[in-house]
Amino acid sequence: MSHISDLTSRISAYALIVAGGSGTRMQSVVPKQFLLLNGRPLMMYTIEAFYNSTYQPQIIVVMHPNFHTYWQELCVEHNFAIPHVLADGGETRFHSVKAGLALVTEDGLVAVQDAVRPLTSVDIIDHAYHQAQELGNAVVAVKSRDSVRAVRNGRSESMLRDEIYLVQTPQTFRADILKKAYLQEFNDGFTDDASVVEKDGVMIHLTEGNYQNIKVTYPEDIAIGELLLGMRG
Amino acid sequence: MSHISDLTSRISAYALIVAGGSGTRMQSVVPKQFLLLNGRPLMMYTIEAFYNSTYQPQIIVVMHPNFHTYWQELCVEHNFAIPHVLADGGETRFHSVKAGLALVTEDGLVAVQDAVRPLTSVDIIDHAYHQAQELGNAVVAVKSRDSVRAVRNGRSESMLRDEIYLVQTPQTFRADILKKAYLQEFNDGFTDDASVVEKDGVMIHLTEGNYQNIKVTYPEDIAIGELLLGMRG
Repeated sequence: MSHISDLTSRISAYALIVAGGSGTRMQSVVPKQFLLLNGRPLMMYTIEAFYNSTYQPQIIVVMHPNFHTYWQELCVEHNFAIPHVLADGGETRFHSVKAGLALVTEDGLVAVQDAVRPLTSVDIIDHAYHQAQELGNAVVAVKSRDSVRAVRNGRSESMLRDEIYLVQTPQTFRADILKKAYLQEFNDGFTDDASVVEKDGVMIHLTEGNYQNIKVTYPEDIAIGELLLGMRG
Repeated sequence: MSHISDLTSRISAYALIVAGGSGTRMQSVVPKQFLLLNGRPLMMYTIEAFYNSTYQPQIIVVMHPNFHTYWQELCVEHNFAIPHVLADGGETRFHSVKAGLALVTEDGLVAVQDAVRPLTSVDIIDHAYHQAQELGNAVVAVKSRDSVRAVRNGRSESMLRDEIYLVQTPQTFRADILKKAYLQEFNDGFTDDASVVEKDGVMIHLTEGNYQNIKVTYPEDIAIGELLLGMRG
C-alpha cells in the first residue's frame, strides 16, 4: 500500500496503549495485560503490532504506577526491547487516556489502544491511521453477529442488527481533536474515546475491524487468543 | 432445582432446532451444522443438550430436505440415537421455524435453537423453559462486552453499552404465542424469533446467557468451540 507509505513520512503518529485493568474479572491477581499468551505477557503483542505499523508511532503505555517496576522487570526477562514511554494511569480509562495525552507533544495522529487487545493486526492499525488522517478520526468496529436488543425502563426492544456495530480499538484521532475532547468533564457515558470525542460535537467514522481482534476479559480468552495466534501461522 | 422438576411434569415441551446454514461463510461446502467438533457433527451436541434438559422436550430438527439422508447416515456412523423428528426447512430462518411449528401439536413450550450453537448449556435451556412458563417467553441474551454504536443514514452514534444485549438462543415461548406470531407476513426485520413475536405485540423477556454459548459462523469458531468444550472438563 504505497499510498500509505507516502503519507506517513509527513506526520507524527502516536500509539496510546491503555493498561487499566485491575484483573478482577479474570479471577487473577495479575492484571490482564501481564497474563501470558504463549509464554509472553500479552501487552507485548499489542505493543509489537504498533511497532510494526507503517506509521512508526511513538508508543506511550499508560499503566498504574504500582506496576511500572514489575513491567520493566518483565521486559528484561522477556528481552522485550521495543522503545516505549511509561505514563501513570488514572482512576478510570478516561483519566488514563488524558494522562497519556499529556505526553503527546506534537500535532499528528493518536491511536488509542486497549492493552488487552493483543491480536489487533498491523493492517487494521495502518488503516485506522490512514482514515484518521483523511477524516479526522477512525474507530475500529465490527457488525454484530447476533440479533441485538436494547433494554430501557425494564422493557427490551429489538434493534435493527445491520445498524449495530461493536466497537474495538484502535480508535484513532487527529491529536488536536482528541486533546480538545479530553478537556471535557468526565461522565459515565464515556465508555471509549469515540464517545468522548462525539460528545464534543465531532462526527465519528467507523472503520472495519475483525472478529479476531478480541479483548482479553475472561479466563478462556487467553486460550482463545493463543488459538487465534496459532492460526495466523 | 426441585421447583423446576415439579413443573415440568405438567407441560409439553418442544425443542425446534433450526439448521438452515448453507455453509458459505465457513469457506466450506459442508453446511455448518455437520462440521465436526472433536470428531462429531456439531449439531449432535446441540440436540444432546436439549435431550438432557429436565423438561424432556420432543426434539424437532428443521433442515433442508437435501440433507436429510446425509444426516441420517451421520447418525448411524456416530451411533447417535437420541430420538428426534426431521422437518423440511424453508427459504429463510422464518420459513424454517414456521415449518417446524407445524409439528408442534400440543400446547406447551417451544424452545427455538440455532443448530450451530453446540455449547448451549442444559442450565440455560432449563432456565429459559422455566421463565417462558412463568412469563410467556424467555430469550437468552448477554450484555455487550464492547462499546456499541448505531449507524443510521451514514452517521454513527454512541449507544449506552449497559442497555445493549446480544441475543442468543434458545428463544423459548408458549406454543400458542409463537404460533400466532408466525402467522404474520415475513419481513426483513425478522432476524430471530423474539423480533417476530415482538412484532405481534408481545413484550419480550430476556434471560441471562453466557459468552461460551457461541454461534459457529467462521472457521476459527470450530477450534474455539473445541477449546470451550475441553474447558468444561
